[in-house]
Amino acid sequence: MIKVAINGYGTIGKRVADAVAAQKDMRVIGVSKTRPNAEAFVAKQRGYPLFIADISKKTAFEKAGLAVAGSVEDMCRAADIVVDATPGDVGATNKPLYEKLGIRAIWQGGEDHEVAGFSFNSSCNYKEAIGRKFTRVVSCNTTGLVRIINTIDHEYGVEHVHAIMVRRGSDPGEIKKGPIDAVVLDPVSVPSHHGPDVQTVLPHISITTMAMIVPTTMMHMHAVKITTKREVSREKVVDLINHHPRMGLIKKSLGIKSTAELKEFAMDIGRPRSDLIENCIFEESIYTNRNEISFFQAIHQEADVVVENVDAIRAMMGTEKDADRSVRMTNEALGFVTIQNNH
Amino acid sequence: MIKVAINGYGTIGKRVADAVAAQKDMRVIGVSKTRPNAEAFVAKQRGYPLFIADISKKTAFEKAGLAVAGSVEDMCRAADIVVDATPGDVGATNKPLYEKLGIRAIWQGGEDHEVAGFSFNSSCNYKEAIGRKFTRVVSCNTTGLVRIINTIDHEYGVEHVHAIMVRRGSDPGEIKKGPIDAVVLDPVSVPSHHGPDVQTVLPHISITTMAMIVPTTMMHMHAVKITTKREVSREKVVDLINHHPRMGLIKKSLGIKSTAELKEFAMDIGRPRSDLIENCIFEESIYTNRNEISFFQAIHQEADVVVENVDAIRAMMGTEKDADRSVRMTNEALGFVTIQNNH
Amino acid sequence: MIKVAINGYGTIGKRVADAVAAQKDMRVIGVSKTRPNAEAFVAKQRGYPLFIADISKKTAFEKAGLAVAGSVEDMCRAADIVVDATPGDVGATNKPLYEKLGIRAIWQGGEDHEVAGFSFNSSCNYKEAIGRKFTRVVSCNTTGLVRIINTIDHEYGVEHVHAIMVRRGSDPGEIKKGPIDAVVLDPVSVPSHHGPDVQTVLPHISITTMAMIVPTTMMHMHAVKITTKREVSREKVVDLINHHPRMGLIKKSLGIKSTAELKEFAMDIGRPRSDLIENCIFEESIYTNRNEISFFQAIHQEADVVVENVDAIRAMMGTEKDADRSVRMTNEALGFVTIQNNH
Amino acid sequence: MIKVAINGYGTIGKRVADAVAAQKDMRVIGVSKTRPNAEAFVAKQRGYPLFIADISKKTAFEKAGLAVAGSVEDMCRAADIVVDATPGDVGATNKPLYEKLGIRAIWQGGEDHEVAGFSFNSSCNYKEAIGRKFTRVVSCNTTGLVRIINTIDHEYGVEHVHAIMVRRGSDPGEIKKGPIDAVVLDPVSVPSHHGPDVQTVLPHISITTMAMIVPTTMMHMHAVKITTKREVSREKVVDLINHHPRMGLIKKSLGIKSTAELKEFAMDIGRPRSDLIENCIFEESIYTNRNEISFFQAIHQEADVVVENVDAIRAMMGTEKDADRSVRMTNEALGFVTIQNNH
Repeated sequence: MIKVAINGYGTIGKRVADAVAAQKDMRVIGVSKTRPNAEAFVAKQRGYPLFIADISKKTAFEKAGLAVAGSVEDMCRAADIVVDATPGDVGATNKPLYEKLGIRAIWQGGEDHEVAGFSFNSSCNYKEAIGRKFTRVVSCNTTGLVRIINTIDHEYGVEHVHAIMVRRGSDPGEIKKGPIDAVVLDPVSVPSHHGPDVQTVLPHISITTMAMIVPTTMMHMHAVKITTKREVSREKVVDLINHHPRMGLIKKSLGIKSTAELKEFAMDIGRPRSDLIENCIFEESIYTNRNEISFFQAIHQEADVVVENVDAIRAMMGTEKDADRSVRMTNEALGFVTIQNNH
Repeated sequence: MIKVAINGYGTIGKRVADAVAAQKDMRVIGVSKTRPNAEAFVAKQRGYPLFIADISKKTAFEKAGLAVAGSVEDMCRAADIVVDATPGDVGATNKPLYEKLGIRAIWQGGEDHEVAGFSFNSSCNYKEAIGRKFTRVVSCNTTGLVRIINTIDHEYGVEHVHAIMVRRGSDPGEIKKGPIDAVVLDPVSVPSHHGPDVQTVLPHISITTMAMIVPTTMMHMHAVKITTKREVSREKVVDLINHHPRMGLIKKSLGIKSTAELKEFAMDIGRPRSDLIENCIFEESIYTNRNEISFFQAIHQEADVVVENVDAIRAMMGTEKDADRSVRMTNEALGFVTIQNNH
Repeated sequence: MIKVAINGYGTIGKRVADAVAAQKDMRVIGVSKTRPNAEAFVAKQRGYPLFIADISKKTAFEKAGLAVAGSVEDMCRAADIVVDATPGDVGATNKPLYEKLGIRAIWQGGEDHEVAGFSFNSSCNYKEAIGRKFTRVVSCNTTGLVRIINTIDHEYGVEHVHAIMVRRGSDPGEIKKGPIDAVVLDPVSVPSHHGPDVQTVLPHISITTMAMIVPTTMMHMHAVKITTKREVSREKVVDLINHHPRMGLIKKSLGIKSTAELKEFAMDIGRPRSDLIENCIFEESIYTNRNEISFFQAIHQEADVVVENVDAIRAMMGTEKDADRSVRMTNEALGFVTIQNNH
Repeated sequence: MIKVAINGYGTIGKRVADAVAAQKDMRVIGVSKTRPNAEAFVAKQRGYPLFIADISKKTAFEKAGLAVAGSVEDMCRAADIVVDATPGDVGATNKPLYEKLGIRAIWQGGEDHEVAGFSFNSSCNYKEAIGRKFTRVVSCNTTGLVRIINTIDHEYGVEHVHAIMVRRGSDPGEIKKGPIDAVVLDPVSVPSHHGPDVQTVLPHISITTMAMIVPTTMMHMHAVKITTKREVSREKVVDLINHHPRMGLIKKSLGIKSTAELKEFAMDIGRPRSDLIENCIFEESIYTNRNEISFFQAIHQEADVVVENVDAIRAMMGTEKDADRSVRMTNEALGFVTIQNNH
């Protein structure tokens, strides 16, 4: 049993904890919080030992009825590997601690590639992660992009990718971040930094990205155009998506044409937290024309990287050397099947 | 086993179907849809026989891979009682059918009181529903109001209620309704029609309401002030809320101060569809001053009436004469405990 | 003096009325309303004679304090030309009236090309409109696209255009339309109908478009990539934009990176109704790479077509045969200079 | 001519500058900015000398094409009085500078009462401001409340005020603040701090307030109930509003029922920046019942305090001793008449 610590029990951390807890070869030995808020009570309800960053706040937690198992350092000492799901740019400041303790660590996409020196996606470079000390699971947007780009690249060879990312302004549970009524170019400059981030996983891919933020909490939406080296067949592309363990096809017959309806459907079919782990590619949008494929895909910012973290743990611990087998183990333990096979 | 038909498998209907299916003394004999959309696939996944309003559309459903069990009339003939969860004002047009078939029917709050001639809430007037042919379960807002008003009235006698309702513009899965950036007075005139609707359940209560719509999908928020006949004790009010089977207390220690954080918490603790069946009264907001109580309560527009429909079925069928017992049966079958006892 | 009637005094109609009234060679002989709402009072304040579609409502208008000058037919009889700014698809139903009266008419982009048989943009095909009986001014999005595409085409030859349109859900003054929290693919299918609409003005242009709707009221945002026949120079592209009478450059020094800040700036510099008549192209976003240009442009859905209507009037009446002169007359009468020359 | 400096040229500062510049007895000797952004270009366009907080940034401003007239301290030395419109809580930190220079200063409602020791509203306590060194103009919400409360108090005697404030999440030009999809209780506790703030102007008024934030940028909405000492007449209340120089009546005939339509109307009738300086009280909402008045009023958060700042300048400088005369001078210089007299 791999002993996993989750440093940062927030949007990503709480999902990784549940995904790890569901695996047969892993267990959650603790999660950390900085403040005794609602999520701390969720950790308690789920039975995860609660560790805190600032041990001087122990009394505050206990007053709220939350038992404290120790400090974050205590937690890390007890673990084989730590998943750092602290907020962007905070993760990097934890590196000295992990180095001091000699513990394996996984960071999220909010950190720079350089923090870990290696950027991970189960479908693209699992093998390279085997035995690594440090790994970074790329962001939700990058995860969504590399899954489909890599698949198309294997089949047809990718000449160039042009992707527009329309990003959600905040997560559903957040109340401070906007915008309320604006489209924000983020960044204004073209190309955006998302292209280079894709290249941390797939260095040989030529890609241009443009990104903006809009006032929604639901999901990101990508408008993607891929130019290929060989002529593409729409039928084959649909087939590739259908057989990928983490790409979903939103069939035309469902009548779904928005992120809101998609999340509602995920909720209705009983997905935990209404999570969409897979790329959600709209069947009706898939357009092919000789060496070109265009489509829309919705990416659930809170969910798609969760399963990648689980696979990264297995690869880094070296307990499973085969990517496909790890992906299957992860998915099966979660009872996860892609959305087109889900109803 | 009471045989229940759900006419209209949408936001409310799909929840009522699941709640009915969970009861030991009832079963869902069918649900109806007008179009073969995502929710029809959900019905199929859940195993509810699918009936359709317009039988000429049978081929369209079958082409989409959805078996059709018959017409709405067929469904009603096979049932002991029908829960009409069709859109507001459509329900009334179904009354002649129910009368023709001599079937019991429950309408939702989108219909006028006069359609059923009786307006229901489990906590207020269960006994009066026993054996009735027709009943109307009052709207989400009215349900939320009568639960707390009736409770305070029993303990202290209600002199007057002044309630401001800040309503969500659309449900999370809807994409056509706004507003996007406005506060809409609905209606502009004071008092609004919500007061008289409370009086369909509690005729002796004096109440003034003002209502507006804002650009959110999450929940309604009520700012309520109740003037009482006898002096109130804050401690006792908290106690009354704590012991009501369908009123929840959002404890200060949770640190929740918005509808978004509340829905996130409901999701995190594993509530199906993140549903908040109970009134969500913010502990920190409860303010008492002699004969006055003020507080904020959040009302989940998609959920609070669901359990009331289940109780109404039992009362109308006459299989359970005691309100408390029915409420307990309904809650237990759903594994429902109010939010303050949930973590 | 060209006598202009405005049929439909709403979002577009009220702006066209003011723009026409500002011209030396035209005057507004009347505007029409269907209901005595706020905009009818605006017409009164501005001194435009008010005509009504349904003369039986005359009393309702008069009771509200609004004098009625006659019916829409009366208004059309008194005019040389009518600008039809009624809601989409309503305009077409007015065609028989205009034909019966033998009056010239201009429709907006909400109508099909076929209604008028000719689709207009001042910068692209002014000459072809001279003397025409019927013309359609293309939609705000199409107007924004053809201005820049035609400019680039003249300089470099356009090989292909790939444009993603992120559209506002409703206008700022609307309260019924959503979405509140969703990205809606409209349409889901790729390519969208916006490409063919561009071809009603520029038939030889190869273009693929993808479109979605987001919860904002401010402006549309286009992410455009143009592939050209000849190698492009970024400096020259900036220069072309700078010298176009209806394309604006949002300079990097302004620090503006969103539609909200852009509208605020338009308001601050005193633009009537904070209107942005010009394409708002973000300088910092202009990216060139050999035969490719990419950029973001914001399009103010309520404003950019207004000046095109004025030019269309002049062309159809045949009083000014030169496009450049008409554009200059229109702009000068409005005191309009593009935003980069405005501060 | 009173020499006025505006420290902080943002949402409020830019409006105060224009209002001051329009007065015959005042002039703007300078405005300050911290960064060379869009608003700095607006100041340049309007001809206001630009001063900067951090003189080391002079080069950055000059590079952007913005001449710098000096430091904030230079600006204050040249002025008779400074209007501090810096962000909330920053204003207080400027007090030592104003004290050192012995210059009169006005703060906004984002600062505590104690910073100035006196809280101002033209209609309530103008006389008490005469000759003062320091004054605080209360916030937009408090300004809107004291105008109507004081008016009712003079006529009927106020027993108690119960006000629910539904606040906008951010201003239209802001892009960072949310919420995007939530109702946020701010604060959760009842009563909110808004009641005591009203009492800084009207100490004898008994008032309870409850406040929340919603995802809109347009205006705040107040649902107010005032209990009076003497019986009220609806007709008289309407009359009082109609004759107040800064209270507007949104007549039923306009058909306006939202903040969005109200802002659109302000735009259409040509109000600079679409500003609504007056309380916007919805005629149809005014409900009276013996000793009780209830109504809805919309408050434009960016605008209502602007004219109060102008009056405060005059009072503090002692150049006009009569409140009514100052209010009239301010309004007339702006060409301002309340909205019901505006069309």
